[in-house]
Amino acid sequence: MDETRKTSDATLDGFVSLAHELADAAAKISLKYFRTRIEVIDKLDLSPVTIADQAAEEAMRALILQRFPSHAVFGEESGLTMPDSIAEYAWVLDPIDGTKSFITGKPVFGTLISLLHDGVPILGIIDQPVLKERWLGVAGQVTLLNNREISTRSCHSLSSAYLYTTSPHLFDKLSEQAFARIREEVKVPLYGCDCYAYGLLAAGHVDLVVESGLKPYDYLALVPVVEGAGGVITDWQGNKLTWKPDFHEELIKTNVIAAGDSRVHRAALGRLDCQAS
Amino acid sequence: MDETRKTSDATLDGFVSLAHELADAAAKISLKYFRTRIEVIDKLDLSPVTIADQAAEEAMRALILQRFPSHAVFGEESGLTMPDSIAEYAWVLDPIDGTKSFITGKPVFGTLISLLHDGVPILGIIDQPVLKERWLGVAGQVTLLNNREISTRSCHSLSSAYLYTTSPHLFDKLSEQAFARIREEVKVPLYGCDCYAYGLLAAGHVDLVVESGLKPYDYLALVPVVEGAGGVITDWQGNKLTWKPDFHEELIKTNVIAAGDSRVHRAALGRLDCQAS
Repeated sequence: MDETRKTSDATLDGFVSLAHELADAAAKISLKYFRTRIEVIDKLDLSPVTIADQAAEEAMRALILQRFPSHAVFGEESGLTMPDSIAEYAWVLDPIDGTKSFITGKPVFGTLISLLHDGVPILGIIDQPVLKERWLGVAGQVTLLNNREISTRSCHSLSSAYLYTTSPHLFDKLSEQAFARIREEVKVPLYGCDCYAYGLLAAGHVDLVVESGLKPYDYLALVPVVEGAGGVITDWQGNKLTWKPDFHEELIKTNVIAAGDSRVHRAALGRLDCQAS
Repeated sequence: MDETRKTSDATLDGFVSLAHELADAAAKISLKYFRTRIEVIDKLDLSPVTIADQAAEEAMRALILQRFPSHAVFGEESGLTMPDSIAEYAWVLDPIDGTKSFITGKPVFGTLISLLHDGVPILGIIDQPVLKERWLGVAGQVTLLNNREISTRSCHSLSSAYLYTTSPHLFDKLSEQAFARIREEVKVPLYGCDCYAYGLLAAGHVDLVVESGLKPYDYLALVPVVEGAGGVITDWQGNKLTWKPDFHEELIKTNVIAAGDSRVHRAALGRLDCQAS
């Protein structure tokens, strides 16, 4: 990572402005298809994709490449566009995170938009178009929910923590055991939120989110949102979440943990400890 | 049950009109407290209650008794008010179903309002005030979602069904085994919805909801909503869901199953079969 390259405030403002345009474009498309009866095609991993997913990613990719042709773009649906192999900036997109919520009409899916600078997420958006809620995280700035500054809440221990994870069935055997050690200790374990859970954490309504097997487009946008609200988000070994787009590597699945209070993050990491990485 | 007593259309219209007023009153209160940091008191069963819950029930109870002093009212928070021990009509209220969603800022909780005639639910409302979505079911009428007629969707088998339940941790051991037989057979099992799942089922986005240990105020409002949309809702033995308020009986917990298509209902009942009632 080249530590000498910095993004100026003016440049960053331009990126934020584009990110909002991307979220608007994706929202328009996903709202058009939400709760309509459209064909759902199962992918090999049984995660359903929708026409909306593909169209929203296409729209966002076109907007980025029109404005910043030298940037890389990586999306869940269509993979990597890397005009320049040493691209300093890379956009990573998940047009509809929570496709199962989307296709069952539950409005807690979200569009995830992130911008990486030399592999480090410096901008993240979680957008929920039905509820018209948009979280914006920018490195070094306080996270905004619909332009209002938000912060995580204090939580001193696992035993008083409200925990979210999307589903109990998304863990493999080892990670399930590790997750169970946390689940049994928290105040209340809750389910069914996808990216929306991290938004609730950033806004101080939830204390802990623990998930397994996430791809880069599932978690990179969450990093600036959670950190800018005062929270901590890492993998299960406590490492920062970064990513460099590469044509040659297979996408690594990552176990992610986010906490509103660093004490809960530390305590939870301790419980995950016996987990093989 | 006195089969000869019928509710006239005009009388029913008056009840529907009051039910909307109740939902409006509850919505005003729950929105005032949603996502604010208020004290949460654990009840003995660890289900959190909020100030909003109590205030909304009080407001609804007052409106009912002002308009129909001869009706019985039963609410989750304050129990039974029965001015007349042979009350023909009884309102059963759950001001905030899904309190865990509510206190974690997730807008899929709901206000449940039902009216029983001689023990049979003849009117039900599921109201989600953040999303401004209101399901209205009335015996013999088509269910409305925000005044638009809705219907369940066709689903020929368990293997193509989308299933919701609130949490995998709300089942006792026997019911968990029975639930697991269904969960393993459906296309996708999903979590985290409370009453909202039944609304999604009535509107044709979900095929099956299976839950255990529900109290009368958790399920009675769902009956007219699901049935009026063409769905089937019963206990796990296939019995209709009715209830008579009684001071002397302990509240019985009921296992509930709702399906959009009667074929899926039948298939699911078959899998629950080995379950002790």
